Amino acid sequence: MTPPDVAVTDVADPLAEAAPTMELLLRELDRRWPPEAERLHRISRYALLPAGKLLRPLLLMESAEAVGGGGPAVVPAALSVEYLHVGSLVHDDVIDGDAMRRGRPSVVARYGTADAIVTGDALMLGMFGVLTDGAEEAGGLPPGRVLAAVRVFARAGVDLCRGQAMEGELRGDLGCGLDRYLTMSSLKTGALFRAACRGGAILGGGTPAQQHALTAYAEHLGLAFQMHDDLLPYTSDPRTTGKSALSDIVAARPTFPVLLCHAMAGARGRARLEAALGGALPAADALRTVHELLETTGALDAARDQATAQAGRATSCLAELPRSRATAVLAAVADLSVSRDR
Amino acid sequence: MTPPDVAVTDVADPLAEAAPTMELLLRELDRRWPPEAERLHRISRYALLPAGKLLRPLLLMESAEAVGGGGPAVVPAALSVEYLHVGSLVHDDVIDGDAMRRGRPSVVARYGTADAIVTGDALMLGMFGVLTDGAEEAGGLPPGRVLAAVRVFARAGVDLCRGQAMEGELRGDLGCGLDRYLTMSSLKTGALFRAACRGGAILGGGTPAQQHALTAYAEHLGLAFQMHDDLLPYTSDPRTTGKSALSDIVAARPTFPVLLCHAMAGARGRARLEAALGGALPAADALRTVHELLETTGALDAARDQATAQAGRATSCLAELPRSRATAVLAAVADLSVSRDR
Repeated sequence: MTPPDVAVTDVADPLAEAAPTMELLLRELDRRWPPEAERLHRISRYALLPAGKLLRPLLLMESAEAVGGGGPAVVPAALSVEYLHVGSLVHDDVIDGDAMRRGRPSVVARYGTADAIVTGDALMLGMFGVLTDGAEEAGGLPPGRVLAAVRVFARAGVDLCRGQAMEGELRGDLGCGLDRYLTMSSLKTGALFRAACRGGAILGGGTPAQQHALTAYAEHLGLAFQMHDDLLPYTSDPRTTGKSALSDIVAARPTFPVLLCHAMAGARGRARLEAALGGALPAADALRTVHELLETTGALDAARDQATAQAGRATSCLAELPRSRATAVLAAVADLSVSRDR
Repeated sequence: MTPPDVAVTDVADPLAEAAPTMELLLRELDRRWPPEAERLHRISRYALLPAGKLLRPLLLMESAEAVGGGGPAVVPAALSVEYLHVGSLVHDDVIDGDAMRRGRPSVVARYGTADAIVTGDALMLGMFGVLTDGAEEAGGLPPGRVLAAVRVFARAGVDLCRGQAMEGELRGDLGCGLDRYLTMSSLKTGALFRAACRGGAILGGGTPAQQHALTAYAEHLGLAFQMHDDLLPYTSDPRTTGKSALSDIVAARPTFPVLLCHAMAGARGRARLEAALGGALPAADALRTVHELLETTGALDAARDQATAQAGRATSCLAELPRSRATAVLAAVADLSVSRDR
């Protein structure tokens, strides 16, 4: 997928342009979480570092810059989104019983349920403290903007929880329909993408129209990202993704390709799909069966196409903003969201 | 314990003076959490209503008024403290496996671990949204004050988590010493008391000296409250407290009277105490043994005396503030903290 011209600058590799931002984020993260004796701090550090993709902090930084207000002043806000994201992953792994995360033992597997719950809480609560740091440190953002960002992140956090609760309700329900899947994804995954971009636009002093454009970009990006994420167990190696390909099967999640397959398959294929996800087979056999059905029905290709279409729509939204290095990076992120292998 | 004159007005029953505040809080809580279809909302309502003692919201409201700035403008902030408190209780019950809370099934017992974790998260994250409402609604507090309150609550939330992690570390450790117990209590229980009072003082426009006085009041109140809480399994009926008297024993918590007993008992008593809390006896027998040791060593009386002393110190801190209905209520709360039976 090529991002439309309007949002792209003439740099050879737009994502490489994000390197200084990523280095700044990594340096700050490491500085703020030194190895330390207190248990909760150590577990938090384990959860945060080595860092993941830092996609949400990057979105916040680049969104702020896209409206003319990035730089060190928004770094605390960018990190705070990562804390919220990582805190929710720590709790996700408790809920799903996932033992692996980013290629190593998850927090719950390594430290147990009690510490995993408390660490997730501390990251989620602490983020609001870090966010308010932005009002004083590093340039001093206007308090009204920071307060608006607090509001955006609090609402996003609640939406994320609503999405997680909804994911629990949909578990095992292959007949839930694509609409409910899209609502769930928009809450569970989209919420933080939207908050990162909208928060960045607010902190960067963007106009309401710019805030709106970046929020719309994030909404489509979130869907593209989740749709592609759902494809990874069938398209990427667990050693690359860092988590078991069986997780979705074991949790009986109605993921995007599975729901498309359910809609596209005949009665016999649907029955096989339901049996595989209903726990009738050992997990590895179930994964093979589902994979085969996704291929034969064309659901895998259809899911890929729709993810790519969402990424394209995300990029189109950037046309509302002045062309810049930042919008090129944001377009490259949309591209990456459907081409990554982890 | 009689509060010192300086903080008391001439009303017959200072706590009765808090009735309009409590009614306002209850009305607002009920209005904001109507019965509703969405699962997460319903579970949140179950966790919040019928309401508990609403002690922390009351502290915030009265602290704001004590510095001349209470009323409807601080109601959102007052409720937000309750959301944080209840969210952490919901997670506590997951961690401890407690099936009862406020005399009925805990959230985890009724809805399961996944929904309990997500509901606790939503309450903790949502609190910051509610808190920022105060900047617009109901009188419109200055954004700088609300932002300062956000910072105070975020830090308190992290301290609360640090206290919970520390409680986990101290589990089963009767030799941990009173200092570590006091640090743990100051974090786990004191953090929200301090945040409620300091937050109220900030939002109410108090001077730094007034903020300091109310924070010191809250610190002593928190210790008094926790010390007295630790006594309840030995002094109050589970039908009154609403939770099992065995909880502390089963979790092998080094509570305040137990630690005093450990320090005051002879070698034989200490060995019996360690056996009882080490899982050597059925829980009900262990409770009886511990209770007997607390009586014979005088630890129960000593714990009661120290709790009362802390409550007295809390009240003394109020002397820094102008005498008012609010300071009388705060003094009465200190009194209540060590006389309540639940």
